Amino acid sequence: MSTLLTNCDILVGPPASGQVIRGGYLGISGSAIDYIGPCAPDAAYDVVKDLNGCLLAPGFVNCHCHAPMVLLRGVGSDLPLQEWLFDNIMPIEKHLTEADIVAGTQLAAMEMLACGITSFTDMYFMPAFTAQAIAEIGMKANLCVFLTCFDPDMRGEDCQLIREAMEFYREYDGHADGRILVDFGIHSEYLTTPATVEYLSALCKQEGGRAHLHLSETEREHEECKQRYGKTPAQWFCDLGTFDSPAIAAHCVYCEEGDLDLMAEKGVSIIHNPTSNMKLGSGFAPIGAALERGVRVVLGTDGAASNNNLNMLEEMHLTSIIHKGYHRDATTITPSEVVHMATAAGALAQGRADTGELAVGKQADIIAISFDRPHMVPAPEILPMLTYAAQATDVVMTMVDGNVLYENGQYLTLDREKVIADVLHSTQRLLG
Amino acid sequence: MSTLLTNCDILVGPPASGQVIRGGYLGISGSAIDYIGPCAPDAAYDVVKDLNGCLLAPGFVNCHCHAPMVLLRGVGSDLPLQEWLFDNIMPIEKHLTEADIVAGTQLAAMEMLACGITSFTDMYFMPAFTAQAIAEIGMKANLCVFLTCFDPDMRGEDCQLIREAMEFYREYDGHADGRILVDFGIHSEYLTTPATVEYLSALCKQEGGRAHLHLSETEREHEECKQRYGKTPAQWFCDLGTFDSPAIAAHCVYCEEGDLDLMAEKGVSIIHNPTSNMKLGSGFAPIGAALERGVRVVLGTDGAASNNNLNMLEEMHLTSIIHKGYHRDATTITPSEVVHMATAAGALAQGRADTGELAVGKQADIIAISFDRPHMVPAPEILPMLTYAAQATDVVMTMVDGNVLYENGQYLTLDREKVIADVLHSTQRLLG
Repeated sequence: MSTLLTNCDILVGPPASGQVIRGGYLGISGSAIDYIGPCAPDAAYDVVKDLNGCLLAPGFVNCHCHAPMVLLRGVGSDLPLQEWLFDNIMPIEKHLTEADIVAGTQLAAMEMLACGITSFTDMYFMPAFTAQAIAEIGMKANLCVFLTCFDPDMRGEDCQLIREAMEFYREYDGHADGRILVDFGIHSEYLTTPATVEYLSALCKQEGGRAHLHLSETEREHEECKQRYGKTPAQWFCDLGTFDSPAIAAHCVYCEEGDLDLMAEKGVSIIHNPTSNMKLGSGFAPIGAALERGVRVVLGTDGAASNNNLNMLEEMHLTSIIHKGYHRDATTITPSEVVHMATAAGALAQGRADTGELAVGKQADIIAISFDRPHMVPAPEILPMLTYAAQATDVVMTMVDGNVLYENGQYLTLDREKVIADVLHSTQRLLG
Repeated sequence: MSTLLTNCDILVGPPASGQVIRGGYLGISGSAIDYIGPCAPDAAYDVVKDLNGCLLAPGFVNCHCHAPMVLLRGVGSDLPLQEWLFDNIMPIEKHLTEADIVAGTQLAAMEMLACGITSFTDMYFMPAFTAQAIAEIGMKANLCVFLTCFDPDMRGEDCQLIREAMEFYREYDGHADGRILVDFGIHSEYLTTPATVEYLSALCKQEGGRAHLHLSETEREHEECKQRYGKTPAQWFCDLGTFDSPAIAAHCVYCEEGDLDLMAEKGVSIIHNPTSNMKLGSGFAPIGAALERGVRVVLGTDGAASNNNLNMLEEMHLTSIIHKGYHRDATTITPSEVVHMATAAGALAQGRADTGELAVGKQADIIAISFDRPHMVPAPEILPMLTYAAQATDVVMTMVDGNVLYENGQYLTLDREKVIADVLHSTQRLLG
């Protein structure tokens, strides 16, 4: 099928440039963009869709999530990370079933599509059920079986989780026309051992995979690693070979200057999760310093239990203002940098070079943003409007690989009422 | 006219308590609430309105705004306060006409109603036109002619602006059935003189009025005052008698411990404007320390030119998380405290003890919040959902004094298309 989007402004090429074609046309053939221009194309399209003057932008990439944790939205509010995680979240997670994972994934997908997220990177239990649900919904996701290990004597080749991770990789990497990719997940330094991390990192390198991990989220975790191993978590992962593959590291709140230099050198992407870092009392990640060194920075919502939503426009807004406040410098981090993090940089960090910007030949992962509501008037410049003024509900259409999955509150591949009923059924059992 | 609201959950009594009547009934007679309960009342009402299971809450009070500045939304983004204000904003403001003020006020009102703001405190030019517009729209506002003075020899009794302020006070205080109140506005220490501030403060006390001012917003302003006068801005205002009336002070980012003690003693309310303070690189106001001392803290959006929207749920969200991040303590500032700031505390700071909570006898300033969209499911506790998960568009109805002014995207007392056309007409002239 081919579709022509008309009557739209188009944020064309690298989104950070802010270049907009006013009153343009965007053609899609199959799953890819085949035309962008200020005039109607010569070719005929099966479907012509009027966008009512909306802005077309590349879909947002949520690079760090625990999607099914929407089931635990609001659990353990106002508690520090360790207490929140070990005393409140983990005891409930023990009781999660496959049906819970499916329902949670579907609810998370609804929430993400409604704010323009077309692709996300996840780390959670039973990812095969998330993979199947996301494949059906039509979104993109990078998933993993993630390594945890508490036995210092465990050899990598004997580790059951690593076997499961490799099985999951072989079965699902490239699944659903490449919409599902599989990463090599490592929870963190503090929930793993050197032997298992080294072994899994070697497998990752051998397979040409990507690593996804938590890094220096809290001061306690960062300092305890230095006490245990005499080095920072970033150096620890580097020495174990994790950074010999493309890696994306969530949080990095306590990464030191030397860590940032190391990450710039090794091409590690930092996933900034501003809501979660503030809500759990972790702190402010050194995003300005990372950008200065050329480290790729991308954005994530983290799970809904520490957020409590999955709203990329909220994370973009926070990223655009909190560092200005923290460094007392209104010039810190520009709208252009933030939009880049949320789109093109995120796509590259996921290993999806075929998307992340609107250009001929790229996959049609496209959102439509309305500038109709009072808070979007006037709009002297596009990129500052997206980071400082826009709300999630200004996203009125979300398309993945040329298929509309969400439009004006309606989900085309999800039964909203059934998903919410399933979620409430799950939470009643889990939370009582 | 009398109205019965049915099929709703009701956040009843002091909002900070989080007490909710599930599936309740709320009756309104004239402009006031005359029934709240879990069962239908015996009395008959002219209109019965089904709220589809929404939560009813008191309307939000935006305690610091420069409403017509929506015209300058996005002007001077990513600049520090002094450069933003003196080089970008003020040169445009010189050209504002009465028609601009009306159009800007109307657009701001549309934006505020859409996120549940029923009342706001403003400080801007030509407030009589704002007063007339707001009176027609049906909202509530505390307005003022605000003092600026650069002549150290100017005597208060010779100051033209003070004469205008008194005329405005006499003409508009209590206007439109008390929906319009008039405050005694003083821009700030740095844009006034001791003689004029002392004189206006004495008038304020004599009239039983309220003072509205900017206080210690930036480090530069705070330190320069100490150099000029040998005291902090808070002590300066206190010594000039400003705090002998109920005063609300915007920002207070650099208020010191002694200032907070003083404000607790004198009953000064601190208006927290988190977006503006971060976006302009000002910093983090000492809200936790203020609350510990019993200082009343309320919330404001500031003007759209330094925000760039007027979204109280965004300010509530920020207040609930940024101080946790800044102090690295997830227990800092609870959802209950934030909801109190946005409702009951704001109403008291405005001198409106007859509203700010849902209780029999209080004015019917009521909003309906939908819990239907995916990001509001599940909702184990109400107050954390409001601060951590809700978005402005979850507000589906805004009522002031018993009159519905906004419902499901529609404005009942404003012509949306005309307002937007008027605004674009103004901005084209102002911004070119």
